[in-house]
Amino acid sequence: MTPPENAQFYHHKKQFILENGGILLELTIAYNTYGTLAEDGSNVIWVCHALTANSHCVDWWHGLIGTDTLFNPEKYFIVCANIIGSCYGTTSPCSIKDSILIPSHTSFPLITIRDIVKAHILLRKHLAIRSIYCLIGGSLGGQQVLEWAIMESDIIRNIIPIATNAQHSPWGIAWNTAQRMALESDPDFHSAKCGKCKNGLKVARAIAMLSYRHYNTFEVTQKDFDNKIEHFNADSYQRYQGDKLVQRFDAHCYYSLTKSMDSHNVGRNRISCESALGGITARACVIGIDSDLLFPIREQEFIAKYIPSSRFHIISSVYGHDGFLIEYSQLTTIISQFLSENY
Amino acid sequence: MTPPENAQFYHHKKQFILENGGILLELTIAYNTYGTLAEDGSNVIWVCHALTANSHCVDWWHGLIGTDTLFNPEKYFIVCANIIGSCYGTTSPCSIKDSILIPSHTSFPLITIRDIVKAHILLRKHLAIRSIYCLIGGSLGGQQVLEWAIMESDIIRNIIPIATNAQHSPWGIAWNTAQRMALESDPDFHSAKCGKCKNGLKVARAIAMLSYRHYNTFEVTQKDFDNKIEHFNADSYQRYQGDKLVQRFDAHCYYSLTKSMDSHNVGRNRISCESALGGITARACVIGIDSDLLFPIREQEFIAKYIPSSRFHIISSVYGHDGFLIEYSQLTTIISQFLSENY
Repeated sequence: MTPPENAQFYHHKKQFILENGGILLELTIAYNTYGTLAEDGSNVIWVCHALTANSHCVDWWHGLIGTDTLFNPEKYFIVCANIIGSCYGTTSPCSIKDSILIPSHTSFPLITIRDIVKAHILLRKHLAIRSIYCLIGGSLGGQQVLEWAIMESDIIRNIIPIATNAQHSPWGIAWNTAQRMALESDPDFHSAKCGKCKNGLKVARAIAMLSYRHYNTFEVTQKDFDNKIEHFNADSYQRYQGDKLVQRFDAHCYYSLTKSMDSHNVGRNRISCESALGGITARACVIGIDSDLLFPIREQEFIAKYIPSSRFHIISSVYGHDGFLIEYSQLTTIISQFLSENY
Repeated sequence: MTPPENAQFYHHKKQFILENGGILLELTIAYNTYGTLAEDGSNVIWVCHALTANSHCVDWWHGLIGTDTLFNPEKYFIVCANIIGSCYGTTSPCSIKDSILIPSHTSFPLITIRDIVKAHILLRKHLAIRSIYCLIGGSLGGQQVLEWAIMESDIIRNIIPIATNAQHSPWGIAWNTAQRMALESDPDFHSAKCGKCKNGLKVARAIAMLSYRHYNTFEVTQKDFDNKIEHFNADSYQRYQGDKLVQRFDAHCYYSLTKSMDSHNVGRNRISCESALGGITARACVIGIDSDLLFPIREQEFIAKYIPSSRFHIISSVYGHDGFLIEYSQLTTIISQFLSENY
């Protein structure tokens, strides 16, 4: 739960007003950059990260970002900022001193996707970036991509929202609720210390894994081939995933981020989702994953349908939603084709 | 958590040896019957219930069983027995006095689907039933149907396994594991009293609801139509479902039944699943639900493929797995056609 290697920090020493009326007294943003900003400012790739990731995108998206990949720092200036509510350096429930409205970190104010993007915009200005060549993200990251393309349509030239939606679905909210219920039912969640609620977070992760994967994923990777009656591979796998996450993530941050995800609705106070998407002037390459249970492809079809300049691609994966972190070959082919027509 | 209305009890006052080596010192089986056994014994419908149901099948399967439905007690003798491990009257973690191997109800012995069926067979003999005209069940109930059709192929004439499988999948086990983790993380689960672990069971139910339903179910029933940022319908719905279950079910029984479901494998010590299904002599009407995430239709296709005398039907539902408790019209049409060709 420390900021990643080579993280930098932007300290916004003013109040940060939240969409829901809350106030952060000041805001710290942890971020990483790779490569050099071109003199004409034309080579910015901005990466928006998903639920439990951090700003070190060459790590968690290594097949897309880094030397010898599509987004090569020798060519591009790549930025990734840790989002508000996450425990990797940006203001979050683990840094309550920054917040005016929070008697304890269990009542960190509600952060919407728009608040997260508003923080990105502060950092963009701090970095003197006047144009974003390509804004890309999957899942919760894709939600930021869409919001940002609406909020700053004059700044963003190309967007690549992957495995995401324009409004978080009742289905997605139900998944997040089950995970929040798991956190709430852990007595440690209601005690004061960050990083100390482990059992609830393990359960939340085990639930989330089901939404990130697919029947076929477990069939291919966790099948037992003997006559056992209990102690199955799939059981061990779920516990292992829970154990892994609690080593690197905080329960209150997790809780906050699921609420942010639930809040996502590009149509809120903007007539409708269709109308808001219709205001995006960036070219869009919308990507869905055929086996995605959490963000089924009809959601990306909807996005592509209403963004004026858009195309829609489906990638095939046995990994479900997690395919956006795994199917590098397909992603690279689709994205490089998309960008080659425009750069 | 009391036995249902008009339940009867069969007390097996001998040791009951379990597949996994455990022993129940004696066994009580709660069951309900409807109608009258024909003199020639030819009119028996045996209903196998699913995870949290009970033996009062005219209640939870009211569109299929009861006067004015397909399985009319005026014509048939209908039997439904509560399964071992369930809290509705049959021996379970809530009745530990019956068990020799359990120091506390948190270590109730592992019950397999074969153990559950072995208990059904004891009751069948007690009721002097020598032939079962039709054996029917969905989900965990369908798992019993298949096991029983293999174990007593000379007794059972027709089977209707619905939304079920021949071996519980790694995917299904992963779902059950997340639910067991939720129970285990509740401190009350490790205390002694039955019916007292509520928070963990609420979470388990919220997880299970996701597997029983479908993206479309939540879209149709829980969508919000305003500009809200939190307190969504889907969130309330999940909590409501958790609150409802803890009024009527026990966490330790729930835990035990998920382990029983995981153990299901008709091929265990029988060469293979294909071979075991191949030994079924009953006519089979196998039914799947197109939107079933937990028991996808490929599982029922597999069953139908390997049972020699079988047919396969898919019903269409927006309700996912829960369709087997809801889509009465389609079920009635398929089943009545199937039985009319044979009665």
